[in-house]
Amino acid sequence: MSSDVDTVLAAADGARAEFAALPGRVRARALRRVADSLDAAAGELVSLANRETNLPTTPRLHAELERTTFQLRLLAETVVDGRHLEATLDSPDTCWPAGGRADLRRMLVPVGPVVVFGASNFPFAFSVAGGDTAAALAVGAPVVVKANPGHPLLSDRTGELVSAALASADVPAGAFAVVHGEEAGRAAVVDPRIKAGAFTGSLAGGRALFDLACRRPDPIPFYAEMGSVNPVFVTESAAVERAGGIAEGYVGSFTLGAGQFCTKPGLVFVPESQAPAFEALVASELAGHVAAPLLNERVATGYESVLSGLRSHPAVREVVSGTAVAPTLLTCAAADFLTAHDELLVECFGPASMVVRYRDEAELLACARVFKGELTAAVHGSLEDAVAADLLALLSDRVGRVLWNGWPTGVSVTYAMHHGGPYPATTAVGHTSVGTTSLRRFLRPVTYQNMPQALLPEVLRDGNPLGVPRLVDGRPG
Amino acid sequence: MSSDVDTVLAAADGARAEFAALPGRVRARALRRVADSLDAAAGELVSLANRETNLPTTPRLHAELERTTFQLRLLAETVVDGRHLEATLDSPDTCWPAGGRADLRRMLVPVGPVVVFGASNFPFAFSVAGGDTAAALAVGAPVVVKANPGHPLLSDRTGELVSAALASADVPAGAFAVVHGEEAGRAAVVDPRIKAGAFTGSLAGGRALFDLACRRPDPIPFYAEMGSVNPVFVTESAAVERAGGIAEGYVGSFTLGAGQFCTKPGLVFVPESQAPAFEALVASELAGHVAAPLLNERVATGYESVLSGLRSHPAVREVVSGTAVAPTLLTCAAADFLTAHDELLVECFGPASMVVRYRDEAELLACARVFKGELTAAVHGSLEDAVAADLLALLSDRVGRVLWNGWPTGVSVTYAMHHGGPYPATTAVGHTSVGTTSLRRFLRPVTYQNMPQALLPEVLRDGNPLGVPRLVDGRPG
Repeated sequence: MSSDVDTVLAAADGARAEFAALPGRVRARALRRVADSLDAAAGELVSLANRETNLPTTPRLHAELERTTFQLRLLAETVVDGRHLEATLDSPDTCWPAGGRADLRRMLVPVGPVVVFGASNFPFAFSVAGGDTAAALAVGAPVVVKANPGHPLLSDRTGELVSAALASADVPAGAFAVVHGEEAGRAAVVDPRIKAGAFTGSLAGGRALFDLACRRPDPIPFYAEMGSVNPVFVTESAAVERAGGIAEGYVGSFTLGAGQFCTKPGLVFVPESQAPAFEALVASELAGHVAAPLLNERVATGYESVLSGLRSHPAVREVVSGTAVAPTLLTCAAADFLTAHDELLVECFGPASMVVRYRDEAELLACARVFKGELTAAVHGSLEDAVAADLLALLSDRVGRVLWNGWPTGVSVTYAMHHGGPYPATTAVGHTSVGTTSLRRFLRPVTYQNMPQALLPEVLRDGNPLGVPRLVDGRPG
Repeated sequence: MSSDVDTVLAAADGARAEFAALPGRVRARALRRVADSLDAAAGELVSLANRETNLPTTPRLHAELERTTFQLRLLAETVVDGRHLEATLDSPDTCWPAGGRADLRRMLVPVGPVVVFGASNFPFAFSVAGGDTAAALAVGAPVVVKANPGHPLLSDRTGELVSAALASADVPAGAFAVVHGEEAGRAAVVDPRIKAGAFTGSLAGGRALFDLACRRPDPIPFYAEMGSVNPVFVTESAAVERAGGIAEGYVGSFTLGAGQFCTKPGLVFVPESQAPAFEALVASELAGHVAAPLLNERVATGYESVLSGLRSHPAVREVVSGTAVAPTLLTCAAADFLTAHDELLVECFGPASMVVRYRDEAELLACARVFKGELTAAVHGSLEDAVAADLLALLSDRVGRVLWNGWPTGVSVTYAMHHGGPYPATTAVGHTSVGTTSLRRFLRPVTYQNMPQALLPEVLRDGNPLGVPRLVDGRPG
């Protein structure tokens, strides 16, 4: 390990206890300072991001920065509310069955220093000051960010602003740092001072880091969000009645951000009878589309490689052949998809998607059964579709978010959002990387038994001095 | 894989959807039927357990069965309450920052079939119908129990009673089964139809299974609770004022169940000046102690082997030398413990414990820093002890449950209990295997976006028809 990385890890470890002990309101104020500081530097940051990622400044990068600072403020509010602490108190009770119970008081505490891997495609929202960083800092876990190589200057400048804002809000210096390079990232994942990891990126990258985390002498949780194909299922009635609107929404969603979203719809299942008309509508929508450059050379090369594999697959036909980064539409028969799904179910990170033509509802359901773990799945249908309930049951069992007559891109930061799913969408099926429940990843329970008031954390003391939501003897109180 | 195990896994997979879809009240009724059935067969089950485990029928085995059936009933009540579903609803809001939000409704759903490894030392409470099984069945996850080889007949008989009770309560047949043998257990852990694992037992066994779970093509969460040394820290003032009571409590706790509890206090830190008197008190308590046989030959052999390693360590001296299974008391100096903790920090599963003599508070705190992950730690002190706050801060950072003037054995099943801790106490620092929050292990979130009422799970519909606790737009509602 380089001495720089060792210094950063030592500082994170050194800040651990002091940072964890800061009151929630102090951490919340610190997150708001970070948000204010990033907003104030929006012009500079957006311009830097644009130069490093090719993403357009307006609306994209300004909107993404707005989302990022809103995320910091929403998590700040959540921390002050204190519901995420799951404060739970049992009164002592000698009559409690199976031997009585002591005075037991449980809450969640930060897990310790976290390494966060920034994503290439969200230089703000899933990067240095993004959701993983915000969630860890919110709960009191120091953060070491491994910058994404796609936007190193933006990462450093964002890091400077975050560090300064945190310092102005009494956060200990070691609680936040940015490091660069794959070697630094790997060193952090296997270092005993790091207690959890978070990642947004490719399946190969996420799995390799997850494996390192699991193989440590002391394994740690590693929360990798690794993308998804996000299938969309269009029922016969929806295809007959609303093909135009669905084609328009589809093109908007799969070309948004040049198709570089983990929620891009990569496959849309359309009834065979309606498919030619639907594909023609999509082609016509695409005709007016202005191609956008991809994030960087590495992403462009990866896109070309995966797309070329799909294009040359014997089951696949091209409907719209985008050259370079112009959008591409592919099509195949559901029968072929069912036999070749191992080859066809790949995330193609860029502006390409595939129509899968199904013959009947039995084949549609069979296709839904093929999926193992996705971030999202969407159904376009109507309440009269007899197949809808069965289809939704299959999908709910396989994905993290199920949409009705909607498109999966545009993941809002809210209380009820879930951005996760079974493997290979993520390595942690029980957790989300977006929304207020994302805090849970960096927390662990501690129970205090018969502890005197003066030695208890304030959250758990008699009279609820911090006014957090608590469960007392199994009831809100 | 044997065809028997394959049949069991196929049945669990086949029951998955139907079982998950059962209303909570139906699953709760099924758990209560199981509890009633086990209570009704108490005489037979306790007698069988006694023959296979050497544990005394009264009070131990009867009390453990009572705890087990109480656990089933408490989890049944929890499932009806529905708080564990974390139902969360966001109203659609075009003014929500960062792009508006859709109608989003989140709840937790069962993760799918779970393999549960029964423990040797709790033939009821952590075995076929124990906490892991109860938690998984409570949330709607099918269970395949890998029986502990220490009590095969009891496992089968318990399994028959559980199966019959579940069948009488409309639970699909595949939702529960018992299998035997290490090979069957390993086959289940790596089978794609199994979606989570739970284990209580040794570090070596738990780690090996955790590794299998992580190395799957599709890794699954594996919740292994692997024991602990459970250090106890006695301050100078407590040792001076209450040595007799502390010695009595210590002997009661470390010899309970012949020392075969994962919460047995394996190390007690006592000030050097008070240690000779304290050790004499402990020796005197032990003089009246009647030795009990260990669970089985395998456990006895393991105990002798670990104890013999400790006994022969140059830093260790014997105060009370128990032959065979009579309790043993060891002692060493804290300075030696600090240099040799890698060798001395081992779980010795049986009636042995060690006094560590510390010179001053600095040395006491240094000893506390040595621990990496424990289920529990206890402090015996008084509010006047200046060291108490620092000591508790260090311990809260390292263990799952912190006790004040108490002993760690006797883990009650409650709302606020946490039975877990950082590695090596468990492989899942964020979770507990005891108490109502143990359900969380077998659940994962799903969010429904813009879903019509008729296609939503009842829990999430307008008007809260099931009356579960819900968070609506960030507030209870």
